[in-house]
Amino acid sequence: MALKIVALVGGVGGAKLAHGLAQVLPPENLTVVVNTGDDFWHYGLRICPDFDTVMYTLGGVVDPVNGWGVREDTTAMLGALERFGESPWFRLGDQDLATHLLRTEGLHRGERLTAIMQRLTSALGIHSSILPMTDDEVSTIVDTVEYGKVGFQEYFVRHRWQPIVRSLIYDGIERAALTPEVTNAIACADAIMIGPSNPWLSIAPMLALPELRAALLARALPRVAISPIVGGKAIKGPAAKLMAELGYEVSAANVAEFYREFINGFIYDQVDINDRQPDVQHLLTNTVMYTDADRAQLARQALTWIESELL
Amino acid sequence: MALKIVALVGGVGGAKLAHGLAQVLPPENLTVVVNTGDDFWHYGLRICPDFDTVMYTLGGVVDPVNGWGVREDTTAMLGALERFGESPWFRLGDQDLATHLLRTEGLHRGERLTAIMQRLTSALGIHSSILPMTDDEVSTIVDTVEYGKVGFQEYFVRHRWQPIVRSLIYDGIERAALTPEVTNAIACADAIMIGPSNPWLSIAPMLALPELRAALLARALPRVAISPIVGGKAIKGPAAKLMAELGYEVSAANVAEFYREFINGFIYDQVDINDRQPDVQHLLTNTVMYTDADRAQLARQALTWIESELL
Repeated sequence: MALKIVALVGGVGGAKLAHGLAQVLPPENLTVVVNTGDDFWHYGLRICPDFDTVMYTLGGVVDPVNGWGVREDTTAMLGALERFGESPWFRLGDQDLATHLLRTEGLHRGERLTAIMQRLTSALGIHSSILPMTDDEVSTIVDTVEYGKVGFQEYFVRHRWQPIVRSLIYDGIERAALTPEVTNAIACADAIMIGPSNPWLSIAPMLALPELRAALLARALPRVAISPIVGGKAIKGPAAKLMAELGYEVSAANVAEFYREFINGFIYDQVDINDRQPDVQHLLTNTVMYTDADRAQLARQALTWIESELL
Repeated sequence: MALKIVALVGGVGGAKLAHGLAQVLPPENLTVVVNTGDDFWHYGLRICPDFDTVMYTLGGVVDPVNGWGVREDTTAMLGALERFGESPWFRLGDQDLATHLLRTEGLHRGERLTAIMQRLTSALGIHSSILPMTDDEVSTIVDTVEYGKVGFQEYFVRHRWQPIVRSLIYDGIERAALTPEVTNAIACADAIMIGPSNPWLSIAPMLALPELRAALLARALPRVAISPIVGGKAIKGPAAKLMAELGYEVSAANVAEFYREFINGFIYDQVDINDRQPDVQHLLTNTVMYTDADRAQLARQALTWIESELL
């Protein structure tokens, strides 16, 4: 019998794991809970970068080169903004805009983010559940040496994650509520997986959400994280740079250490076989996902290991 | 000395006259007041079709074939909306979206439509003033035989102005306020011109706006309309069809009759030389504007006639 999985994920890396799980699980057995700490308002639109990356990936329309955005998208709108003297620094592709418009319109109408995104994911033919971690607005603020406190997307996109990070604030997280959909998914889950996402930028906001953290810890079940650090480096993005800036030695074992309170299982890459072992049950395997088959392979291995060793 | 002109206009025909006036007047002498009765909300965006047509025309970026929208615009966003199961019936070009986004963002921030559009027109290098008739929301409702009461753009775009019109309602017009900018422009004007726009759909909402009507009638100055009906037909759009449905014989003289309370001068096309003459001072000339030079020529003739005969 297939396990019921709740996967906690951020953007590109997490989307790949979600896509792997979607390939090997019946759709009703997979719920992907996505970080919304990166979400922001831009030109009056509500932008949910991580959610859209997961949705586009599972919907088969993602840009295969970037890993985010819509395949073969154009930027005519951005060009027209420049004609009005604007200097847009966040890429809003023309096709991508349809998502932002439908989401923003729904929010202004008073709909919940969860309900809006369920409608959009269904329309794209996605049968698994993709859920925002909360319907409430949470904003990751990055306190940097160079610019002081800046919004996440300013740090990440505008400044290309080059500023040195002193600390992270998940503004609004204390007041953010769990949704019935996420509550139910956790209540019915056989195991929780944490994607190979940035622990501080993508996963920590979810673990800092009080009701989500409590719901995850309330159940005795496998909680398995996959390391985004392989061979002392991040597969993509600022995970390794940020880890060092926050005072950690950059290693898979230290990612496991960061998650210690939450996980009882950890998967990391076989290239790190000679490193210090994490202080939790673990699986060493190939975790780098280049192809769709790699994603399915990692998902299958993880599920088999959870079933045989952790349940 | 050049006259100070306030031109009341709707979409494509009015935009051509405005462009003609812009070619022959110093920019500070021209204020174009644009109908906003066609404005509506669509996918959460505030769309001002007439205003944008005038802005794109004076800004030199209008699509030369349609006479509205941005030159060489694409429709990637609309295609992506269809992927979400939407059936968008109003063309929102990708470049065009930049205008709607900046406008909507400004409105949500609490800015006045007039202030937002002054910023956008300036950014496009337009030195004349283009002003919405009001900052308040007014909605033209079309009562049709086939569908009952429908919003203007549903009638005009979705049903391609084919339904038979029983009557028109300018919803919100009684509460709409004149702006300081329009008030000042009328106070300083040497003459008022009414563009060759649809009298019922584009001009009537302005004349029905109580403070605007009062301001126009309070001053003793030339008020000159240009007929959109030439040879018993409309140059473009539903003016002739609508005129017949509202019970008028379709002629330039009857357009003058419709405007009788407001105008003291009327310009119509020389092809109608043998028709019944309007009951007001009038100029017969070539009013059909195919080229930019035609626009300048009509504007120059109209101004000369106003200066020599009406002032």
